[in-house]
Amino acid sequence: MKPFKAPLEDILFSLRVAGAEEISDYDADFAREIGQHFAAFAEGEIAPLDEVGDVQGCRLEDGRVKMPDGFATIYQAYCAQGWPALTVPEAYGGQGMGALMLAVTSEIFSGANHSLQMVTGLVPGAVRVLKRFGTEDQRAKIMPQLAAGEMLPTMCLTEPGAGSDLGRIRCRGEQTGDGWRISGEKIFISGGDQDMSERILHLVLARTSDNGVKGLSLFLCPCTRSDGSRNAVTVTRIEEKMGLHASPTCQLAFDNAEAELVGEEGQGLAAMFAMMNHARTDVALQGVAHAARAYDIAASYAAERQQGRSPEGAPVTIDQHADVRRMIDEIDRLALGARAIAHLACVTMERGDNSALVEFLTPLAKVYCTEAGMRAAELGMQVLGGYGYLREYRIEQTYRDARITAIYEGTNGIHARMMATRLAGSAAGDAFASYMQKEASRLSSEKAVMLLELWHTTREGVLNAKDPSVLAEDFLQASIKALLACIWANLDHNKSHHPDGARLERLCSNRSA
Amino acid sequence: MKPFKAPLEDILFSLRVAGAEEISDYDADFAREIGQHFAAFAEGEIAPLDEVGDVQGCRLEDGRVKMPDGFATIYQAYCAQGWPALTVPEAYGGQGMGALMLAVTSEIFSGANHSLQMVTGLVPGAVRVLKRFGTEDQRAKIMPQLAAGEMLPTMCLTEPGAGSDLGRIRCRGEQTGDGWRISGEKIFISGGDQDMSERILHLVLARTSDNGVKGLSLFLCPCTRSDGSRNAVTVTRIEEKMGLHASPTCQLAFDNAEAELVGEEGQGLAAMFAMMNHARTDVALQGVAHAARAYDIAASYAAERQQGRSPEGAPVTIDQHADVRRMIDEIDRLALGARAIAHLACVTMERGDNSALVEFLTPLAKVYCTEAGMRAAELGMQVLGGYGYLREYRIEQTYRDARITAIYEGTNGIHARMMATRLAGSAAGDAFASYMQKEASRLSSEKAVMLLELWHTTREGVLNAKDPSVLAEDFLQASIKALLACIWANLDHNKSHHPDGARLERLCSNRSA
Repeated sequence: MKPFKAPLEDILFSLRVAGAEEISDYDADFAREIGQHFAAFAEGEIAPLDEVGDVQGCRLEDGRVKMPDGFATIYQAYCAQGWPALTVPEAYGGQGMGALMLAVTSEIFSGANHSLQMVTGLVPGAVRVLKRFGTEDQRAKIMPQLAAGEMLPTMCLTEPGAGSDLGRIRCRGEQTGDGWRISGEKIFISGGDQDMSERILHLVLARTSDNGVKGLSLFLCPCTRSDGSRNAVTVTRIEEKMGLHASPTCQLAFDNAEAELVGEEGQGLAAMFAMMNHARTDVALQGVAHAARAYDIAASYAAERQQGRSPEGAPVTIDQHADVRRMIDEIDRLALGARAIAHLACVTMERGDNSALVEFLTPLAKVYCTEAGMRAAELGMQVLGGYGYLREYRIEQTYRDARITAIYEGTNGIHARMMATRLAGSAAGDAFASYMQKEASRLSSEKAVMLLELWHTTREGVLNAKDPSVLAEDFLQASIKALLACIWANLDHNKSHHPDGARLERLCSNRSA
Repeated sequence: MKPFKAPLEDILFSLRVAGAEEISDYDADFAREIGQHFAAFAEGEIAPLDEVGDVQGCRLEDGRVKMPDGFATIYQAYCAQGWPALTVPEAYGGQGMGALMLAVTSEIFSGANHSLQMVTGLVPGAVRVLKRFGTEDQRAKIMPQLAAGEMLPTMCLTEPGAGSDLGRIRCRGEQTGDGWRISGEKIFISGGDQDMSERILHLVLARTSDNGVKGLSLFLCPCTRSDGSRNAVTVTRIEEKMGLHASPTCQLAFDNAEAELVGEEGQGLAAMFAMMNHARTDVALQGVAHAARAYDIAASYAAERQQGRSPEGAPVTIDQHADVRRMIDEIDRLALGARAIAHLACVTMERGDNSALVEFLTPLAKVYCTEAGMRAAELGMQVLGGYGYLREYRIEQTYRDARITAIYEGTNGIHARMMATRLAGSAAGDAFASYMQKEASRLSSEKAVMLLELWHTTREGVLNAKDPSVLAEDFLQASIKALLACIWANLDHNKSHHPDGARLERLCSNRSA
């Protein structure tokens, strides 16, 4: 099997093309240095546990989750090297780095071990929630623990019967003389328990009044009280899944659990979205990571595997067969194009001057990048043929793990529907239109101009439709196609900045779709 | 989880539309009767073992394969009911039924339990080989055992280093004073060993001279000699795979194993193709079976699962959401369209008057139907959202099991390449063109006429290309699109013959692609 190799040069190139260097706190040399450190750690220590985790999975023993062998130890090393502190503000013991540095390490982490990244990956989201909605006391108490890795946060949103329909949430928060208490059931909680961090902090969306989504509030609910005793939160089951076996997906029961409000009562949704928006970008990068991993496995295999003969009769490796070459290039394009879209969303968010565009790009990136990860894994397996179906070559784990990304953090269908029903006719749609207009003209891309016209026509159809959700898939596809035309024109424009310019040249010039 | 339900009405309708009733030995009423018997058996007894098989998998113990619990028992029942005899000629104790009846039971079997169908599914292929290439002695000796289910055949083709490249086969057959002996290694042998049938008959492609593919001969190599002792065939490993856990994929070592030649020396490839052509149609039907199963799981789930509210504020089931409805209809169309193509290939083969068209339709059906199975499983999982990713709801097994169909019996890429390099400019291509021409005009389908023109243009490009394999994917897609236009016009034309005409009406009228 092919050991994991972090696609660091591709990542740095992509950030540059997305305009990262215009962001004041991004330093390309520093990003390379940090990226190299993390890549070495990921390749040498995190990635080798990916298969162990897949084979062993998590176990629920005496009400506690046992992670696979080696996970607790690697997490200690991860903390000792200071990685949890990356995005925690310096005032609270962190390194105060921005979302672009995080995009470097996060993608590498997901490529090396998606499951472990899941369990540890909500720190930046929790930091964001505390920054915007927490009290100074809460920040001072919690952030240093997050920075040290002593505490890992979870996001407790979904309930049985309330998946994407938050109005149906029934978990309740009630104020007692002694503070808030939470009761109810949550499902699909990633990392809902584990034996790696000393403490777990559940961020729980619970109902404080019957006023639909306006009756929801966000709570901080630690699994361990300040005196060290266990809070009334129990793991009632962990799910058996197709993939991500080393990420414990827990069902949690809160039974008058002690909790404190974060943000205002009834403002839970806004606070939760601060966390979810981070999570969505992160999921997009997971898709990119799977696509890049699929490329690496498939390209390495095809460069070694001999089959058939050249017209001159010499044995050839399968990457010289036209259909295999086509598949490998397509996987490569999926990874590069998806990463470019995810980075565009990140850079625009960091720039902070166009939140309407961010609003449009975030679901687009989530959907396209996760589809790209799945498609790349599928093609990668096809390149390996029968061997791809075997556990031994590991692409089948990529295929299984990548699949969840199109489902969680809002199914891709929900995002597409939201784009058609809410964003198409809003400032977000306008922002996308003017961004596209400017880019297409800056890059002199006729194709982008043409696809933007088509996009406008589709948008018109959506805005005039009695039920715009019927056109959600069309609007999504029109948006993706138009954006990809700009993205590839931009990559083409910048290809000389990539250390392997010849590869970029080939990918840009043969791109048909 | 949704128990398996055989899509019998859809199958019978599809055979009718494909022209089955023009075939003299096809009787629609009899097909319904046989289908009902098999469906009851599959639903009640075979399907419940599908999950057991997936969870337990096969084990290699003391050099022998142990099948999952219950498989040996169900196989006895299968034999007792006479199912192995279905296509064996009556003269040898069989029921002498044709490929259309087999298409009914085979699809149902694969939908109920793909793994078990794999292990038992090569009987009709072996019958075909013996009919065409066997001696009367061989037929008289073997066919009754196949009919009784005492013997199950395997197809031993692939070797390490010789996947789709048969010229590299190194397994050798040598004539001794005492008959033929085979030595060498074979990999990826489905059902290479099992503990269900008393005997196993390996059909082995081996080299009898160094003359490339012309030096290959086909052998019958029983695992047990006539005196009951074990032949020199050993299972050296079974593969760990992403799916099909109850189908033992064996690596076999032949060490001077006793064997007999079937057909002429050096004619191995022709004999093997007789078997493989059966296998390819069977694989196409496996794809259809997965698509139909995905439809059943997704549609049933979506009709029960509530989420969101209607404009009037009432809770709605998710099949009333536009994006979910779109996905369910698309799954349904994938199953129906794929089945129609597979049945067209079968009926044309049975009619026996247009082997050139069969040659074109067989790879087309293999590729389209297997892609349809994968795509349907993917969409089906998406309909179930997070639950789809759980083992409990079983669509994830469909997703894993369906994946192999695009790989085995020649990867889809190999078939596409063969269509472009060998069929496009041959009588097969001409036969397809004139079939399409006639159908498009019979059905007055403007869309089909237009897509046929596009197909001709693409074909022209392929024929003029220096390396036609570069255009393989384009030619494949053009062929599929043109054929699908005819297929759907034909389904539309016949929709009143389906017991659920309203469903067919909706599927035909909303079809966009």
